[in-house]
Amino acid sequence: MSSSHKQNRDMLGRTDVVSLDEALQLLLKQLPASTARKIMLPLEESLGRICAEDILSPENLPPYPRSTMDGYAVRAKDTFGATEQLPAYLEVSGEVAMGEFPGYGPDPGACHGIATGGILPPGTDAVVMLEHTVSISESMLEVVHPVATGTNVINTGEDIAKGEVLLTAGHRIRPQDIGLLAGVGLANIPICRRVRVGIIATGDEIVHHGQQPPPGKIRDMNSMSLAAQVRILNAKPFFYGIAADNEENLAALLHEAKAASDIVLLSGSSSVGTRDLGEKVIARMGNPGIIVHGVAIKPGKPVIIARADTTMIFGLPGHPVSAAVSFDLFVRPTIIHLSGIAADGLPKNRIISARLMRNINSASGRTDFIRVEIRKVQNHKPEAHPILGKSGALSTMVKAHGFIEIAEKLQGLKEGEIVEVNLFD
Amino acid sequence: MSSSHKQNRDMLGRTDVVSLDEALQLLLKQLPASTARKIMLPLEESLGRICAEDILSPENLPPYPRSTMDGYAVRAKDTFGATEQLPAYLEVSGEVAMGEFPGYGPDPGACHGIATGGILPPGTDAVVMLEHTVSISESMLEVVHPVATGTNVINTGEDIAKGEVLLTAGHRIRPQDIGLLAGVGLANIPICRRVRVGIIATGDEIVHHGQQPPPGKIRDMNSMSLAAQVRILNAKPFFYGIAADNEENLAALLHEAKAASDIVLLSGSSSVGTRDLGEKVIARMGNPGIIVHGVAIKPGKPVIIARADTTMIFGLPGHPVSAAVSFDLFVRPTIIHLSGIAADGLPKNRIISARLMRNINSASGRTDFIRVEIRKVQNHKPEAHPILGKSGALSTMVKAHGFIEIAEKLQGLKEGEIVEVNLFD
Repeated sequence: MSSSHKQNRDMLGRTDVVSLDEALQLLLKQLPASTARKIMLPLEESLGRICAEDILSPENLPPYPRSTMDGYAVRAKDTFGATEQLPAYLEVSGEVAMGEFPGYGPDPGACHGIATGGILPPGTDAVVMLEHTVSISESMLEVVHPVATGTNVINTGEDIAKGEVLLTAGHRIRPQDIGLLAGVGLANIPICRRVRVGIIATGDEIVHHGQQPPPGKIRDMNSMSLAAQVRILNAKPFFYGIAADNEENLAALLHEAKAASDIVLLSGSSSVGTRDLGEKVIARMGNPGIIVHGVAIKPGKPVIIARADTTMIFGLPGHPVSAAVSFDLFVRPTIIHLSGIAADGLPKNRIISARLMRNINSASGRTDFIRVEIRKVQNHKPEAHPILGKSGALSTMVKAHGFIEIAEKLQGLKEGEIVEVNLFD
Repeated sequence: MSSSHKQNRDMLGRTDVVSLDEALQLLLKQLPASTARKIMLPLEESLGRICAEDILSPENLPPYPRSTMDGYAVRAKDTFGATEQLPAYLEVSGEVAMGEFPGYGPDPGACHGIATGGILPPGTDAVVMLEHTVSISESMLEVVHPVATGTNVINTGEDIAKGEVLLTAGHRIRPQDIGLLAGVGLANIPICRRVRVGIIATGDEIVHHGQQPPPGKIRDMNSMSLAAQVRILNAKPFFYGIAADNEENLAALLHEAKAASDIVLLSGSSSVGTRDLGEKVIARMGNPGIIVHGVAIKPGKPVIIARADTTMIFGLPGHPVSAAVSFDLFVRPTIIHLSGIAADGLPKNRIISARLMRNINSASGRTDFIRVEIRKVQNHKPEAHPILGKSGALSTMVKAHGFIEIAEKLQGLKEGEIVEVNLFD
């Protein structure tokens, strides 16, 4: 063991480790183009999904000019110069029924009652709002404010014109987008297929989480938490099982996962017990192979990033905390890239600023991610309490509300500093 | 029509309208206690759900003391005083195999190789990290740094002790929580049932969005977008269909929805065409009945808030934009309250600060919600461009990235001001 230890130390502890920025750049350079395949999906199921192409409106919205106010449909010129002192008098000769197409309109000098959303009757071109009228009798109205042509009216196609682009390729669909698509009658829409993420746990000591582990073994936690991280990004996790620490077994599972996935995650494969093995097997999967092995971050240092043909493969540390952090740093942007989503430049996390409640040391030349608990304080900035546990302790992740990043060039942060906290999803 | 118009104007335009704060307080006072029922759910399906009760750990994590480093398991006292100049010499008499319970340990003065996660062999109490050793031969090791008892070891139950509270009632389950629950072998967990939200569209002019509307009619957009807003909050929407503008029909649908739902949304019921009807029918459903009718906000003013026994009923404006804003202001906090989630005081939206790109006027005494498009600018604060469309225009919601709130007491905002933008989910 000691000789392979020694070799690893030279390899991983020193020469091969790259900075976070370098690792991200190397990753970015190797990412295949988004291969998101187009599928048609019922509108009801499209929330959060990505448009596979521009979606054009098949019709005008509204299809006819409609009132945007409760009031009276008029010819604008009949209200010219009307004031409280000198109102215009209009005959009320009808009413637009909701849900019906008005077959006739008022004569000049007359008006029809209309509710918000009602279709303008023929001959009318504006709506006087209720508040600018005084009802004299059932059939006579005072108008105390003039309107111009088009006032309180939304014209044919003014909201959406036929042929107009409703949503662009790469747009992530939100509730209001669904409302719009329903409004123009699009019941099935072209969506990018979800990114498929294969998950393999590795290690002789790992058993399925539903099993009672015999002494010396532990339950697989990472497969479950990584799958949840995948789901939050609207990608689709697939479990390929637990690979024992032998080349045959791991290679077989990895082949199977690679064939069906855009991304494969091996958890545990980069810890020392299985590191050589994971590295060896990943390197065999295709070209260009391993592109990053070890990043100057804490936690998460021993991460492996590889591309095998068009499949991205990540060897994540076995430590739950390291695995979660490495996922966030490297797998998350990969999923987002492959999902077909167009970059909007908006922050992906909820971020709050908080007061750091103790000094934190950090090695210069390494990017540190510190988990913090947020405590609200009446009338003050919230407090960020660093959670300092052993790196294997999953409970620290559960106590935390988010994390702060200490940049590579900093040697730490001081108590009392105002820091930005990235809140967990 | 004109006489009912007049009555409405007095009722809705003036006396009954309350401020946003008052409306929220009235709502809060009437909210029934969270009635979230407990169900057991497989861990795989628990992401984003709310714990129905405290969840205790059935076992210790780790179950045995484990190494947190790659190195050598030792008796700490054997390394006392070790330095580079005066190293301690230890015999390497074995190695802990991953996944196996070590049946025997090293003799005093000896050590066993151990990898991260390995179980400490009997007799040892610390781990010397690889980097603090020099391998002399296969069986002899120099230790150049002393360790104390417990160094690089995570003890039995140190991460999680048996009986410890893992997650508290009301906690929303995140990926790391799922990892932890998997780690202690909890495969089924007590979760609050989703809040059930019944949705009814109202209006003679509305047809199902899958249908081609005859002239004068329009497709139902709100049911679809409201359902998506419900889903984002992890609640469950149920469609009850489209009610014609007659009391019988609406009352029948509302009764049916009320019996099965925690919350019922009527969309369109508070616009003038169906306003009296919606109000009348809602008032019949149970006590205390309507608690708010009209709020000094724009858009969204004609909202109805009611409680009928233990069901909250909301009459939302028919305008898609007004419906979406009213949902966010009133229905969203109601769903969150009824979901059983414990308040954590953390912001619910992603918020960014941006530079407002034009003046906006706002009536004092009214809270305005302005939709904005965000444009990123290299090396500058992002720009917030207000989207000023007619209030019925759904396209404005689709162009927007988020909204800014203009408080009741303000008369507007000036170009160049730095504003907080609430980004849409």
